[in-house]
Amino acid sequence: MLSGSNRNDILSVEVPLGDRSYQIEIGPDQIDTFSQTVLSTMSDLTHVLVIADAAIQEPWANRLIHSLSTSLRDDATPLRVSSISVPSGETSKSISQLSELWQWMLDSSTDRRSVVIAVGGGVVGDLAGFAAASFTRGIRFVQVPTTLLAMVDSSVGGKTGINLPTSKNMIGAFWQPSLVVIDTDVLSTLPERAYLSGLAEVIKYGVIDDAEFFAWLEANASGLVARDDGTVRAAIAESCQSKARVVGEDERETSGRRAILNYGHTFAHAIEATVGYGQLLHGEAVSIGMQMAANMAVDLGICEPTLLPRQTELIQACGLPTTFPEANAEAMLPVMQRDKKVSHGKLRFILPERIGSVRLVGDIDPSSVVKAIESCR
Amino acid sequence: MLSGSNRNDILSVEVPLGDRSYQIEIGPDQIDTFSQTVLSTMSDLTHVLVIADAAIQEPWANRLIHSLSTSLRDDATPLRVSSISVPSGETSKSISQLSELWQWMLDSSTDRRSVVIAVGGGVVGDLAGFAAASFTRGIRFVQVPTTLLAMVDSSVGGKTGINLPTSKNMIGAFWQPSLVVIDTDVLSTLPERAYLSGLAEVIKYGVIDDAEFFAWLEANASGLVARDDGTVRAAIAESCQSKARVVGEDERETSGRRAILNYGHTFAHAIEATVGYGQLLHGEAVSIGMQMAANMAVDLGICEPTLLPRQTELIQACGLPTTFPEANAEAMLPVMQRDKKVSHGKLRFILPERIGSVRLVGDIDPSSVVKAIESCR
Repeated sequence: MLSGSNRNDILSVEVPLGDRSYQIEIGPDQIDTFSQTVLSTMSDLTHVLVIADAAIQEPWANRLIHSLSTSLRDDATPLRVSSISVPSGETSKSISQLSELWQWMLDSSTDRRSVVIAVGGGVVGDLAGFAAASFTRGIRFVQVPTTLLAMVDSSVGGKTGINLPTSKNMIGAFWQPSLVVIDTDVLSTLPERAYLSGLAEVIKYGVIDDAEFFAWLEANASGLVARDDGTVRAAIAESCQSKARVVGEDERETSGRRAILNYGHTFAHAIEATVGYGQLLHGEAVSIGMQMAANMAVDLGICEPTLLPRQTELIQACGLPTTFPEANAEAMLPVMQRDKKVSHGKLRFILPERIGSVRLVGDIDPSSVVKAIESCR
Repeated sequence: MLSGSNRNDILSVEVPLGDRSYQIEIGPDQIDTFSQTVLSTMSDLTHVLVIADAAIQEPWANRLIHSLSTSLRDDATPLRVSSISVPSGETSKSISQLSELWQWMLDSSTDRRSVVIAVGGGVVGDLAGFAAASFTRGIRFVQVPTTLLAMVDSSVGGKTGINLPTSKNMIGAFWQPSLVVIDTDVLSTLPERAYLSGLAEVIKYGVIDDAEFFAWLEANASGLVARDDGTVRAAIAESCQSKARVVGEDERETSGRRAILNYGHTFAHAIEATVGYGQLLHGEAVSIGMQMAANMAVDLGICEPTLLPRQTELIQACGLPTTFPEANAEAMLPVMQRDKKVSHGKLRFILPERIGSVRLVGDIDPSSVVKAIESCR
């Protein structure tokens, strides 16, 4: 386990991608010293574009902008700081919002050395990341995730993009950030339900990749739920470590390895699409989706018997749902068959074999899918 | 020199980019056998999306679609073919046209194994290439350039993108095609002025990279202008070879090497922007721009004395302009200072030292720029 012994320790995790490798810095008090971190990573920096979720503009984005605006570079010249906020929520991942950002970047005299700073949750990270990926065919960007979900998942790994009116994440790029700065102090202002939602992805890493971490989570669930500093920091660092390892092995989702990160997600996306985005938070849908996948694995006889009860107990200990009475198998099935990760219409799922190990199982019979969904109603 | 001894020889040029390497196939009669070429390169192909310039839908795009629709894969199943045409002209490189393509791709059940086929000039290649680069974070695409300009320049090297309302090529991606198929028969229907315009980029490769090729062009200018089969094919192949070499050394324009391809283009873009796109064809502006750059090099004393007269004579022999009376230095200068390749406002130009060799010269005084522009009025 990665852990810091002091309150102010910064944990560093590297995402190993050759000349696109980058660091994830995890710890408290990083917003106010943000400019130092960025300037030590990118010494040629002269212009930054801060794109922030409107909901965290005050205090976090403004404090970060203050840090950037008041700092001097090595040659004693100030950084030029442009900033904009985008409305909270999934609807900002749209063509029109992206077009606005592009025009704003042009009007801000952005050039190829400019750096985008994305401050917010997954929506802002995905949107600003794709704006960076596509402006003058790609400029650098830094992720400053402000939700637990974004800290442990979307800010790491280079998936950026927007939605089409009827289909999520259909447009985008694999575009790696140059740096991820996770200030754990930001979590203090995160609403309870949003915070707990992020724990679903943390649990996922234990199931798919790291049995030792899963056992640690079982022992530390109460500290996690209570947002104990050291516990939260260690959990984020371990999660990022898992994600970095998987992304390092399969950056562009070509070998199949990266697909393990979708554990529970095929079900979750179908739940979200059929009940309407917004009723459940993403992590809540993922919790239920992991339960459906584990039930399917049990049903298919490929899963070690203690897995399902241990997973159920940990999800519940983190205050997350394990069932969803409104789940509608008839509505969910066609959604899953349209998923962009589906290969030629065949249903494939990431299923657990034991804690710490999952595999891709193809050619799943629709009746098994229905049964798995109904097991969690 | 690459050349084929028979009328039907196909010349192959490789763009060396590691696991993103691809072939450029140059020769006659390739449209009707297109499906064989594509299937031999991509055996897993099941779905293609043909995006064609409306002006060449008949006959070229329709013949290519026919080839695809009537062919069977190894397992005797047909290819699924979706097709769409986009209006001719630069205005199609817009956010709205791109959005339409994205929605059409979604409606056509495009998945990550689908392949986009771009049939047209630079506009369609850039637009369709970026649609491919961004749909589900990137699917494969094939370039089938139908103008000489696209054959020797934009179809090779992976620059894709669209314009913002006030700024060209501001949005896009470096996204390499999987294959470039150049059917030289298509040139037979290209209008004279558009054909000659393409020769400007051919001449450029001689000046920037290959003195032997430049001498060959001097000896073969009349055959080129007359569209002699073997001469045209050899000139395209040599041009692609030069471009492939430069792109292979600096795929993403980071080392500065790729910038040599912009010889004459900083002036050309400023001419195009100030007189309005459409008055001059791109190759005509490039011809004038190369003359301005060569004049500047002479003026700065960095250029071997025979270069300017040889370049002038070859451009004229190809029916292209060497002067532009409407050139307005006062209007052009600010445009050049806003160019996205400008580094922090400093004026930099690719200038020739001798035939076959150019270099990047920075910190150019604006008075030298004005003098170069006025030398070609």
